[in-house]
Amino acid sequence: MKKNRSEEPDRRKFLKQGAALAATATAVQGARAQELAGAPWERVYGAGFTGYGQPSRFEQPVQRHLIKPYGELAPGSGVALSPIEKLEGVITPSSLHNDRSHSGTPEIDPKQHQLLLHGLVARPLKFSVDALLAYPMTSRIHFLECSGNSNRNLAPQPVQAPAGVLHGNIACSEWTGIPLSMLLEEAGRLPQAKWILAEGADSAHMSRSVPLEKALDDAMIALYQNGERLRPEQGYPVRLLLPGWEGNMNVKWLRRIKVTEEPTYTKDETSKYTDLQPDGKALQFTFEMGVKSVITKPSSTMTLPRHGLYEISGIAWSGAGRIQRVEVSADGGASWTDAALYGAERPKALVRFRLPWEWTGQTAVLQSRATDEKGRVQPARAAWLARYSPGNSYHNNSIASWAVGADGSVKNVYA
Amino acid sequence: MKKNRSEEPDRRKFLKQGAALAATATAVQGARAQELAGAPWERVYGAGFTGYGQPSRFEQPVQRHLIKPYGELAPGSGVALSPIEKLEGVITPSSLHNDRSHSGTPEIDPKQHQLLLHGLVARPLKFSVDALLAYPMTSRIHFLECSGNSNRNLAPQPVQAPAGVLHGNIACSEWTGIPLSMLLEEAGRLPQAKWILAEGADSAHMSRSVPLEKALDDAMIALYQNGERLRPEQGYPVRLLLPGWEGNMNVKWLRRIKVTEEPTYTKDETSKYTDLQPDGKALQFTFEMGVKSVITKPSSTMTLPRHGLYEISGIAWSGAGRIQRVEVSADGGASWTDAALYGAERPKALVRFRLPWEWTGQTAVLQSRATDEKGRVQPARAAWLARYSPGNSYHNNSIASWAVGADGSVKNVYA
Repeated sequence: MKKNRSEEPDRRKFLKQGAALAATATAVQGARAQELAGAPWERVYGAGFTGYGQPSRFEQPVQRHLIKPYGELAPGSGVALSPIEKLEGVITPSSLHNDRSHSGTPEIDPKQHQLLLHGLVARPLKFSVDALLAYPMTSRIHFLECSGNSNRNLAPQPVQAPAGVLHGNIACSEWTGIPLSMLLEEAGRLPQAKWILAEGADSAHMSRSVPLEKALDDAMIALYQNGERLRPEQGYPVRLLLPGWEGNMNVKWLRRIKVTEEPTYTKDETSKYTDLQPDGKALQFTFEMGVKSVITKPSSTMTLPRHGLYEISGIAWSGAGRIQRVEVSADGGASWTDAALYGAERPKALVRFRLPWEWTGQTAVLQSRATDEKGRVQPARAAWLARYSPGNSYHNNSIASWAVGADGSVKNVYA
Repeated sequence: MKKNRSEEPDRRKFLKQGAALAATATAVQGARAQELAGAPWERVYGAGFTGYGQPSRFEQPVQRHLIKPYGELAPGSGVALSPIEKLEGVITPSSLHNDRSHSGTPEIDPKQHQLLLHGLVARPLKFSVDALLAYPMTSRIHFLECSGNSNRNLAPQPVQAPAGVLHGNIACSEWTGIPLSMLLEEAGRLPQAKWILAEGADSAHMSRSVPLEKALDDAMIALYQNGERLRPEQGYPVRLLLPGWEGNMNVKWLRRIKVTEEPTYTKDETSKYTDLQPDGKALQFTFEMGVKSVITKPSSTMTLPRHGLYEISGIAWSGAGRIQRVEVSADGGASWTDAALYGAERPKALVRFRLPWEWTGQTAVLQSRATDEKGRVQPARAAWLARYSPGNSYHNNSIASWAVGADGSVKNVYA
């Protein structure tokens, strides 16, 4: 397998192997328009316009995967995972964005909501949502990944579930909002300011400490997601966005920012979201999400219907910046080939990688390995495991493996 | 007003004028967390997870503008316009994508739908949707504009309506699909092939002729929109995408591509979608959408609530490639200032432009003027009108004008 960064040679490979393609297209003799059976919908007037459109009813099964550890007792505590195995490109539709929440999604009246900016500032300020909407905006495409993403892949035995159940606590949107630095400058932070505390208006008052450097760098007070106002489960009417940092720090339903000298050590950064080390100590404040990738097509629970050419496709991302390279292996990591990348010009955003692969009917183990612009390489599973105590369930960015059986079945494996 | 391409100096301008900002933020004395009134939603468990999320109920008024010239007799004939005055960034949520249709939205069963590729090809082919989904994919962000966009601004008197009603037959999505060139290569086009005919499976059998060069260039058989499968009103399960070309040519519900030697001269390219010239002749085949921009905030029917600094924000695009520059005028075109651009690296895609503007209470006429990488400049209204017969209602890319009154009211004007 040779290196290949542009998409064109890959397409050629598909075309030069016409036999494989003929398995999906059907040759027709002397085809004329009349030979197309007039489908029922071609004979009737179609549906009228709608103010706010929805997917086809044939796509209704495309839903987030809901994991509710406390069942209906606490229906909003848990996670709704993005069905990455059914999505394409890099923009996640807001309706299918991953959603981790601790005490459900509050229904906030934007006319009543306020954001308080106080603490070590010269001029404490209160912002109504209308006030925030009057500020200059900035837009950027960024991923959001829960630090617990892929923790189901730490189970003793590989779980056989769709890729989204295993690795779907990730999504990518175009966010628009106010640079946090602008509001901090307006409030006038005092010299001893080193951290901020961000607090949500959910009943859990989810709150995290954030170093001031991040707040002054690319942090955003986000008001819009994929063009429209934030969705309720993404923090409507206002959330904090910390590009590339663990999801829970991007505090939703943001009600308060307090400028402080030290971390606040909130319940959400002491009782959880710390990383258990082999020596039994918990590593605190692992903010940045690691370089990572996962193959979404084909992926576990799918079945390859035929021998021939397939496109291996997946997503890659890094909290440290741009994705520089994604390699794909079909032999469990013995050999690697560079995939073509889409969206790699954007830092801290999902990248789509694609590579043609011919399945001749033999067993295979498919893996992807991402490298970011800082030169960080996605670790093998064994190397990642060696870094942490078995109890750790955060920041699993290790290489994921799908085994293709001789019968075309695709299974989650630890390789 | 000086030229200014980066966003940073604009932000400084906002910050250095604290008085203006204080009009939106509220100063609070000795603010502490306890001073935040605990809102009702902070005291109760929030809503549970949903498989497919929806906007906040407080955002329900954000809907497409429905224009149904034949009323309920033909509810799907007309247009649903994107509420561009309420959107931010450049990605349009699929639910609010503009939608022009001639005989309503067919409800197509993807298991029954087929795409026929025939005519001047060596091997006519038929594709099921599943067959199409097995091909290699490509993703790109592109705008789609109906050639009739902004034709309401050709009325004798300026219509007082939101910007979306006047100029919202435009949207921008991330599209994923198969390069059409790949399917044409598989079918083996014959030497005399010069055009294709693309035909939809709606009951109007909307169909257009497309030069083969475009089909072999960046044309896409689109299957996904913003990550998920196409929406019904955008052509589910499969549409043609011709980046930068007039919307109706991007045939939705695509059932047939016939390779031909000449244009087919379908009803949809002879009875309409031609441009009336001053000499009474109709110009046929104006494929490419012109360079264009429109200010969305502030825009007509809005009211400026206070004196002070505002962000002028809007969208720009060109069918010819990248947007190079957007200038903004607050004095009806007497002087211009360059706006900061977001997304300008993408060809044939929406670009967001932003510029701070201080409103001191005087009347003003706000305009934006886009220039693309080919050096084409968005024309003034008078220059555009001189090019066509008064009856022409397509390809109006002329500069739009919003008049700000001394009372803060914003009105649509011809300037």
